[in-house]
Amino acid sequence: MGELRKDPVVNRWVIINPQGRKRLFLEKEAREEKKAYAENCPFCDGNEDKTPPEILVFREPDSQKWLVRVTANKFPALRIEGELERQGTGIYDQMQGVGAHEVIIDSPSHSDSIADMDESHVEKIIQAYRDRVVDLKLDKRFKYVLVFKNYRITAGASMEHPHSQLIATPIIPKRVKEELKGCLEFYKHKERCLFCDIIREEKRSQLRIVAENDHFLSFTPYASRFPYEICIIPKIHCGDFANIRNEEIYPLAKILKETLKRLQILLDDPPYNYVIHTTPFHFPSNIRDYHWHMEIIPRVIRMAGFEWGTGFYLNPVAPEDAARELREVNG
Amino acid sequence: MGELRKDPVVNRWVIINPQGRKRLFLEKEAREEKKAYAENCPFCDGNEDKTPPEILVFREPDSQKWLVRVTANKFPALRIEGELERQGTGIYDQMQGVGAHEVIIDSPSHSDSIADMDESHVEKIIQAYRDRVVDLKLDKRFKYVLVFKNYRITAGASMEHPHSQLIATPIIPKRVKEELKGCLEFYKHKERCLFCDIIREEKRSQLRIVAENDHFLSFTPYASRFPYEICIIPKIHCGDFANIRNEEIYPLAKILKETLKRLQILLDDPPYNYVIHTTPFHFPSNIRDYHWHMEIIPRVIRMAGFEWGTGFYLNPVAPEDAARELREVNG
Repeated sequence: MGELRKDPVVNRWVIINPQGRKRLFLEKEAREEKKAYAENCPFCDGNEDKTPPEILVFREPDSQKWLVRVTANKFPALRIEGELERQGTGIYDQMQGVGAHEVIIDSPSHSDSIADMDESHVEKIIQAYRDRVVDLKLDKRFKYVLVFKNYRITAGASMEHPHSQLIATPIIPKRVKEELKGCLEFYKHKERCLFCDIIREEKRSQLRIVAENDHFLSFTPYASRFPYEICIIPKIHCGDFANIRNEEIYPLAKILKETLKRLQILLDDPPYNYVIHTTPFHFPSNIRDYHWHMEIIPRVIRMAGFEWGTGFYLNPVAPEDAARELREVNG
Repeated sequence: MGELRKDPVVNRWVIINPQGRKRLFLEKEAREEKKAYAENCPFCDGNEDKTPPEILVFREPDSQKWLVRVTANKFPALRIEGELERQGTGIYDQMQGVGAHEVIIDSPSHSDSIADMDESHVEKIIQAYRDRVVDLKLDKRFKYVLVFKNYRITAGASMEHPHSQLIATPIIPKRVKEELKGCLEFYKHKERCLFCDIIREEKRSQLRIVAENDHFLSFTPYASRFPYEICIIPKIHCGDFANIRNEEIYPLAKILKETLKRLQILLDDPPYNYVIHTTPFHFPSNIRDYHWHMEIIPRVIRMAGFEWGTGFYLNPVAPEDAARELREVNG
């Protein structure tokens, strides 16, 4: 029967109830065979003039063919120009929507996906994430940058072509603040990093590990909100994703690709989101008590009123079962 | 262009960006003509033996025909038997999934919906909510009860037949805690209720009002997370939904039906969730600084990685536009 589990970082309770398993996979969408080139797609090889100007590009060695391109988002959620201009309106508070919204085009091919790419190609995507974050940190108006991916329409993608996004914001997002607070409180008590403790516990119990290499661990969190939710985290303490070392980028690409490949095989190429959570800009102390990580959320169930109303989650798949199934996939 | 707005209760920032309007209505699902009776539906008139035993029933005056029935949920997220048994497991914390999970069958007719019911019928549904909350408060293991509705499959409903649900939980949900904290902090500063201030501001500006009667106000919140999000709130301060007076139930039924009817007409019968937020059990002081209310969330856009990753929201419809459009509907 069900049990309640507490997320140690944000103190969020989750109901793990495997009896609800029948509700899985409601979100699956119709699939069409995709071609490597789509005429109307501005992200496809040959259509480069249909995007805003390139901010960053990585090319194949010894060739002019690009592998990864970064451009401004044509329909930005926040605009890059202007100042914040905080002001009151009636009893409420408001500021101008200043920020940066960029698109990382993962590949020139319309039908590609990270699960199917060469690891050296995935490495370039992560390098693009890192380089853009490092650059945006120089803009004093911003406090945070979120790197994320919406894979497939059900996960919120508006373009089919494989791409990632980043949004730099003038405030620290609420969810990140909650994680920072949890980690700081733990550090005050124990004088060590909470995520480092979680890594030790996961390696000790071996119950929830999906994949591992010298630098990274991929596991299903103890209080997973969603079925097959996965966390990828550096095994050596590191608070800020912008500080990832060059030699760590390939191992991250490797474990990300392997994890997404296992998800692809087990759940028949499900829609998913992933995000990178890292320390905010200009808060050096968080580098000590926070620990950057990626969160992968397959979109295989629907959120309903209970989740919206309470902020706690009903998860019909125990993370131990999810990890075992993902490990048992023959990739 | 976009702006950032702060929710005064939980300090959550929302990006209001009407340029994103094209993304609306992705969640719409195929509609079939529904009949008043479905043979395999356990909630339909005549199939009463297919549900768990009745906990509460309201019948038509001078007739044996039922209007609203409450039963236990056949597939509960939390079970009613047992004690909490909090315990550690490795470095993590856990407790048994104890709670109550009930179904309020809104109507004997399979094709009914609140937007189309008589107000006197909606009154009975709300009376059932109130009576069940009052009863569950007597169980000392529970700290909160969430009343909610998932309307249509896209909004998480697993049954087509019109119904609401409630879940009583042994902990105060995170989202409710955040609201309580915001209200308490405001009270400490100002010695008055924050929601009462919001009601005054909304009545003063008239920008976001959807409907109003002697007892209730229906409006689109200043920092709405979702397009056409609506709040229904008692105009006279009242912290605890369980304390709603008998003479207030009909006005609530009336404004709820009118609000949902306007949504139904404007957005072509969209999927939606609603929840009732009220004070937790056994916390009498919250009755002073908190203010119960209903939140209605039409499900007309998808959540994506940015929202999951940050906890702030991208809303492509300004609440002022939403309220005006809803007011202009000819019901």
